[in-house]
Amino acid sequence: MSLSTVLDTIDRSLPEATDRLLELLRIPSISTDPAFKADCDRAADWLVDDLTSLGFEARKAPTPGHPMVVAHYGTEGPHVLFYGHYDVQPVDPLSLWDRDPFDPQIETTAKGKVIRGRGSSDDKGQLMTFLEACRAWKEVHGTLPGRITIFMEGEEESGSPSLIPFMQEHADELRADVALICDTGLFESRTPSIVTMLRGLSKCEVTVHAANKDLHSGMFGGVAINPIRVLTKILGGLHDDQGHVAVPGFYDGVEELPDEMRQQWQSLAFDHGQFLGDVGLSVPAGEQDRTPLEMIWSRPTAEINGIWGGYTGAGFKTVLPAEAHAKISFRLVSKQDPDAIHDAFEDWFTAQLPADCTVEFKEVNGSPAGEMSIENPAFEKARTALSDEWGVPAAYVGCGGSIPIAGYFQTYLGMDAMLIGFGKDDDQIHSPNEKYDLESFHKGIRSWARILENLNK
Amino acid sequence: MSLSTVLDTIDRSLPEATDRLLELLRIPSISTDPAFKADCDRAADWLVDDLTSLGFEARKAPTPGHPMVVAHYGTEGPHVLFYGHYDVQPVDPLSLWDRDPFDPQIETTAKGKVIRGRGSSDDKGQLMTFLEACRAWKEVHGTLPGRITIFMEGEEESGSPSLIPFMQEHADELRADVALICDTGLFESRTPSIVTMLRGLSKCEVTVHAANKDLHSGMFGGVAINPIRVLTKILGGLHDDQGHVAVPGFYDGVEELPDEMRQQWQSLAFDHGQFLGDVGLSVPAGEQDRTPLEMIWSRPTAEINGIWGGYTGAGFKTVLPAEAHAKISFRLVSKQDPDAIHDAFEDWFTAQLPADCTVEFKEVNGSPAGEMSIENPAFEKARTALSDEWGVPAAYVGCGGSIPIAGYFQTYLGMDAMLIGFGKDDDQIHSPNEKYDLESFHKGIRSWARILENLNK
Repeated sequence: MSLSTVLDTIDRSLPEATDRLLELLRIPSISTDPAFKADCDRAADWLVDDLTSLGFEARKAPTPGHPMVVAHYGTEGPHVLFYGHYDVQPVDPLSLWDRDPFDPQIETTAKGKVIRGRGSSDDKGQLMTFLEACRAWKEVHGTLPGRITIFMEGEEESGSPSLIPFMQEHADELRADVALICDTGLFESRTPSIVTMLRGLSKCEVTVHAANKDLHSGMFGGVAINPIRVLTKILGGLHDDQGHVAVPGFYDGVEELPDEMRQQWQSLAFDHGQFLGDVGLSVPAGEQDRTPLEMIWSRPTAEINGIWGGYTGAGFKTVLPAEAHAKISFRLVSKQDPDAIHDAFEDWFTAQLPADCTVEFKEVNGSPAGEMSIENPAFEKARTALSDEWGVPAAYVGCGGSIPIAGYFQTYLGMDAMLIGFGKDDDQIHSPNEKYDLESFHKGIRSWARILENLNK
Repeated sequence: MSLSTVLDTIDRSLPEATDRLLELLRIPSISTDPAFKADCDRAADWLVDDLTSLGFEARKAPTPGHPMVVAHYGTEGPHVLFYGHYDVQPVDPLSLWDRDPFDPQIETTAKGKVIRGRGSSDDKGQLMTFLEACRAWKEVHGTLPGRITIFMEGEEESGSPSLIPFMQEHADELRADVALICDTGLFESRTPSIVTMLRGLSKCEVTVHAANKDLHSGMFGGVAINPIRVLTKILGGLHDDQGHVAVPGFYDGVEELPDEMRQQWQSLAFDHGQFLGDVGLSVPAGEQDRTPLEMIWSRPTAEINGIWGGYTGAGFKTVLPAEAHAKISFRLVSKQDPDAIHDAFEDWFTAQLPADCTVEFKEVNGSPAGEMSIENPAFEKARTALSDEWGVPAAYVGCGGSIPIAGYFQTYLGMDAMLIGFGKDDDQIHSPNEKYDLESFHKGIRSWARILENLNK
């Protein structure tokens, strides 16, 4: 039986596939918030059951945090490891959602049908594209092609604390010829792509302490140091006037983009006007001597992801708080060392503290940037499959996000990863009203069927 | 019967007076939070009942916000208007309280007995000193001395929005020979004082808007402007390196302290080492060319009382938020115009906004600084009474806080106010674990009895 029968089966059973995804989306598996621990566990159980029904030998593997899902099928032929994550981002601010984030629904919009709900695009909808491709293949062929290992984690949105120890302990079980990671998007929402460059990440939470208690600004204002003033003063200098990060040593290890890659990216004709325009902006805010695509894919950044201190409720309270906080993250590229970056930031911050203030750095962690070698023939086989499905030449691209798993697969399992995903720029991942286009889901499933076919030719 | 009989009565009935105060403290009359509206109303009712029991013709007078309490006694003799406020500050962070803020109790500490609970010092404990003095006087004399009008508001901690319209409408009813305001403290926690200089206030909430929704820093970090970065950059420049406020025009109308006042203040031998040391600090953080007492009493300041934006929960979320917020207040002196200060701040802030950002200013309000004339003989009569009670010469001092009511009494009722209070520096008003010393309460009551005696001699 031919590939076209598998694709026909995928087309015919799309409603049932969608229902299965909605079921998984109803589980609020927010990994960063301990209140949702049982839900993370429930999502893992759901996946184990589904994989078992597909003929996998599947299990929920415990970790000190949320469990891994590991499954195996077959013993011969090309061996792929498929990776996805079943955990999702928090949903606040809840008031900006147009519906309950965990009561997902198919909505008809001006741009077509979408699956609306937290995790629809990041990453439950994406990981289910691969499982549904397997399901259709099994229905047609009675078996799955080659050897497939499935590896899913539940801590991707909270720093993956259990990932490296687990991979180290289970390296033999997890190692394959190549990894398939489904957690990225279509380039400019229309061109299928395989990510070969990924930014790394270094992050931490900063707390500035001043007085030993909250003070009244009438009694102490003008004499007592205000930690919010200290925090804004120091963080206000994190970027210079040209948008460069001002921490000394920050650019150590940053390499210039090779000319050929720069030319390939220029040929992609990235429309930064529309990219920014879609979210209500117009002017690139980063390093003024770089193009927007460079800023996102190949340049490091510093961002303040959260800040809080003092009175933030309704009304007013003229308080001088005892402490102020911020969450900071750095996106890293090339050979930047996450630990060295954090140390440089800590030194830079601490050196600027005024008298009577102390600073504390918590939740410090990071991962280096990653770069794949496309010499493995699996890359060209997958690229051809994607070009066939989408009707346009698939591209090798960079990615601004940090998907540390790709680097870990290189470091701990000695294999490269193909990062292939079907998200769109307007999916609003990590934001209210996250969605996944029904087209992404449908053609994503078809894409994996074609890729499995090509890899096993 | 003599004053000493009244003082003896006060001493004897202190336990019952304390019980009455605890009852009032149990009402969580947080004016700034709409959730406590009914409680504010209940506190006003409680005061009306208590004043009625003292022989006052008392009523709860409605306003668009929380009600006023107005009461009258007598028709002849010196006429005083007594002012206090029955509302209290919010209690967050609740986790830092050692007990339920609205389950007050007498605690025995190393420094003596204290009344612990929100509002114990600011301002319920203070306003009850006057009512208890009246109660003892009435018990001994069968009447109250002279003519007394009581005027209490429930919006002091939330900007007093109803105060001016109410005073304008009821000016004839409220006007007296002199006002008595009980909302201040002992100088250095031991010297009784009458405040003759008060700082004004200008405050607002600032919101910086950037993208039309929250963004993922992996996808947009480095290209999209982050409003937290904008907010920290601008507010980080609010003070220059010498601690001066950097807003152009901010110091317009600020007058130098007259030499004689400066000398009197120097003679107070203010121990700024201890003042700061008590709250865990050591170095004055304000204008480097001013003494600490000048900074607090006679110099204007800018403070960030609250800041928030992005993800502030447990764990991490690499978000670029759509907006970021801060609450800013300026303490004003001399002839600084609150409206002009706000306009200057708004202009200064807006001029620094980068492309694609907008700013919104909310909850804008303010009040000018105030200065009393001590030529009215009531001032010396009160000062003598205070010196007699406390055994040390009472002082005329400045106050860093904003008690706009004193200026309003001058402007709208044409009378000066004597600001006399018994709080201590470690009362932790506006902070967790607020307390009022039992000594403040007891000697406060006795002080008012002596002041009433002297004013009616």
